[in-house]
Amino acid sequence: MKLMRVGQAGNEKPALLDADGKIRDLSGHVADIGGEVITPAGLAKIAAIDPKSLPELMPGRIGACVAGTGKFICIGLNYSDHAAETGATVPPEPIIFMKATSAIVGPNDDVIIPRGSEKTDWEVELGVVIGKTAKYVTEAEALDYVAGYCVSNDVSERAFQTERSGQWTKGKSCDTFGPIGPWLVTKDEVPEPQNLGMWLTVNGQKMQNGSSKTMVYGVAFLVSYLSQFMSLHPGDVISTGTPPGVGMGLKPPRYLKAGDVVELGIEGLGTQKQTFVADR
Amino acid sequence: MKLMRVGQAGNEKPALLDADGKIRDLSGHVADIGGEVITPAGLAKIAAIDPKSLPELMPGRIGACVAGTGKFICIGLNYSDHAAETGATVPPEPIIFMKATSAIVGPNDDVIIPRGSEKTDWEVELGVVIGKTAKYVTEAEALDYVAGYCVSNDVSERAFQTERSGQWTKGKSCDTFGPIGPWLVTKDEVPEPQNLGMWLTVNGQKMQNGSSKTMVYGVAFLVSYLSQFMSLHPGDVISTGTPPGVGMGLKPPRYLKAGDVVELGIEGLGTQKQTFVADR
Repeated sequence: MKLMRVGQAGNEKPALLDADGKIRDLSGHVADIGGEVITPAGLAKIAAIDPKSLPELMPGRIGACVAGTGKFICIGLNYSDHAAETGATVPPEPIIFMKATSAIVGPNDDVIIPRGSEKTDWEVELGVVIGKTAKYVTEAEALDYVAGYCVSNDVSERAFQTERSGQWTKGKSCDTFGPIGPWLVTKDEVPEPQNLGMWLTVNGQKMQNGSSKTMVYGVAFLVSYLSQFMSLHPGDVISTGTPPGVGMGLKPPRYLKAGDVVELGIEGLGTQKQTFVADR
Repeated sequence: MKLMRVGQAGNEKPALLDADGKIRDLSGHVADIGGEVITPAGLAKIAAIDPKSLPELMPGRIGACVAGTGKFICIGLNYSDHAAETGATVPPEPIIFMKATSAIVGPNDDVIIPRGSEKTDWEVELGVVIGKTAKYVTEAEALDYVAGYCVSNDVSERAFQTERSGQWTKGKSCDTFGPIGPWLVTKDEVPEPQNLGMWLTVNGQKMQNGSSKTMVYGVAFLVSYLSQFMSLHPGDVISTGTPPGVGMGLKPPRYLKAGDVVELGIEGLGTQKQTFVADR
């Protein structure tokens, strides 16, 4: 299933995209896409509904594909080629950092370049949405705890991230720096999460063109690994790192300016399109 | 006012501690202590209630003093003596990192030493609870955005934090590593947040004995500073760093074992007492 949230920010309705590409209103059945609704039992209830029985919604603003995210966890330097382009080496175990959940926005919302920013950059990433509380789970069972996948743009301010006193959070958590969606695609529709094409363009020019098959630490490993440090809960999102082609890695580096348009997508998970704007 | 949450985990009732030390039930007036309830307007409504008109609650488990925290932001190396004891220097601007909100527990709950941990450590810290959405606020106006203060123990696993591939989040976010409370003490009762005695004992032995007056970056500066990078929302908590005396800084270092009892407190903000236990 392709689950989504449609409507003005803060007022989205839960919905699904049917086989004909029509948006169907789920608000008569569930309160939102998140928490108990995306557990195995919750998803089974939605799967039992005939989409044709649901009212059709007109296309409009699309919200973040999951609500009530408690943790927005990111993995650093998880593609060997991306590590190389930033001058870093692949770490001996995954680098974890957090993005503020207040950075989460819809897939096509404007992204605000924060005041003082000169190095706002892009990162197309495979997002993993947790569907069941996970603690100390093995890699073999890890995917049982995944509800599905989504496109994530891990927007990053490189000067804030690396030149303003340690720890990357500062450059990762700015408001609007976390577009996720358009859909939470349930895992039954993504049989090979480690073999998905992913791309990103800036003003129509291809900048990233990779595949999740070159991820260093795969989805199952990451879910298991993270669960050794902290419980993962339904609605938590893991953004699993970016392939080569970020602005910081270009010679010379290239960063985003007001008016730039970024488009990105992952095979089977849909596309995003953001206009970058100056902060007022 | 001293606001608190009383009852079993996940089922706490909002309450206040009256002038006689009695716990008064606020559940007839507000849903919980968090969000709109702790904005200036929300706090004014509670302040208008005669505590004696509220039902008395029997003492029981105390929950975290604020509910629905979206961001649990910590400041690193924010006391010059603590920086020195860890072999670091005071950073030219604040170090920000995140603790997972899923780590938050009540002030007297057991703290679980995670599997594989050998370096679980303590940190008494002044917690700041945001009461109004803050974005690009100046230092002069910053305290207008603060609802109040609380005691915070920024429990840390030093090997996870510093020896397991970059970024501190990994050693800061374990389940139960974030006791906050017992009370959210509204700022009108804390006229001098930069002059509060703070202490911590392990099995009765004094380990930390400091004051918020030796903080490098004070509360108003931190709220203003953080708001340049991200919006702060009501219920967000900032843990502002720890004075000297953590286990990592001792020669030889000393870390917590199952059965150890940690007590800590801050002048006017109450005390916490945790038993450290092994993970099952």
